[in-house]
Amino acid sequence: METVSTKSLKFDANGLIPAIVQDAETAQVLMLAYMNVESLLLTFETGETHFWSRSRKELWHKGATSGNVQHVVDLRADCDADALLIRVIPAGPACHTGNQTCFHQSLESQTA
Amino acid sequence: METVSTKSLKFDANGLIPAIVQDAETAQVLMLAYMNVESLLLTFETGETHFWSRSRKELWHKGATSGNVQHVVDLRADCDADALLIRVIPAGPACHTGNQTCFHQSLESQTA
Repeated sequence: METVSTKSLKFDANGLIPAIVQDAETAQVLMLAYMNVESLLLTFETGETHFWSRSRKELWHKGATSGNVQHVVDLRADCDADALLIRVIPAGPACHTGNQTCFHQSLESQTA
Repeated sequence: METVSTKSLKFDANGLIPAIVQDAETAQVLMLAYMNVESLLLTFETGETHFWSRSRKELWHKGATSGNVQHVVDLRADCDADALLIRVIPAGPACHTGNQTCFHQSLESQTA
């Protein structure tokens, strides 16, 4: 597999890059969150996912409160280097609702 | 599974919502792209993924040129309704490089 350096990543105007989190064992997509440089480096250093919470405007160690940390298996970047895919072994559900994945709602078109 | 209406989705300041595309058969994550309301409705209407190209600033029917369209199996929204997961059957590689997935680069930390 090709490699790309964190220095080559393209962060957006807010200094963020979207990160897809996928269960490395089940391949289920768990969540989409955002990283800044600091949370990405903390993720590398600790081997557990860290994000930037856009709502709380603070660093967010996933699972710090709930215990449901995510152990990183590997990190990948896409061809444009403006999105990340992080494969993890989760210690528990990704979603604050208790669902294994945050993507637990089926989307229905409503044009009326 | 719970359901959510397209009317409940939270689009960002540019009128976009990120959409993770996953192969419904292999569970491989193929790409991350962005949808506006129009591309989302076209996706529902045609059963093939449509996005908003941020670089070209135009609607983008995935595969219109290459033939590598993505047949939609289902669409899901996350708990915050600000990200989508679209499971597809792809007619060919997702990436313009010819790779099956756009996430074909391993990310390496470089702090020097």
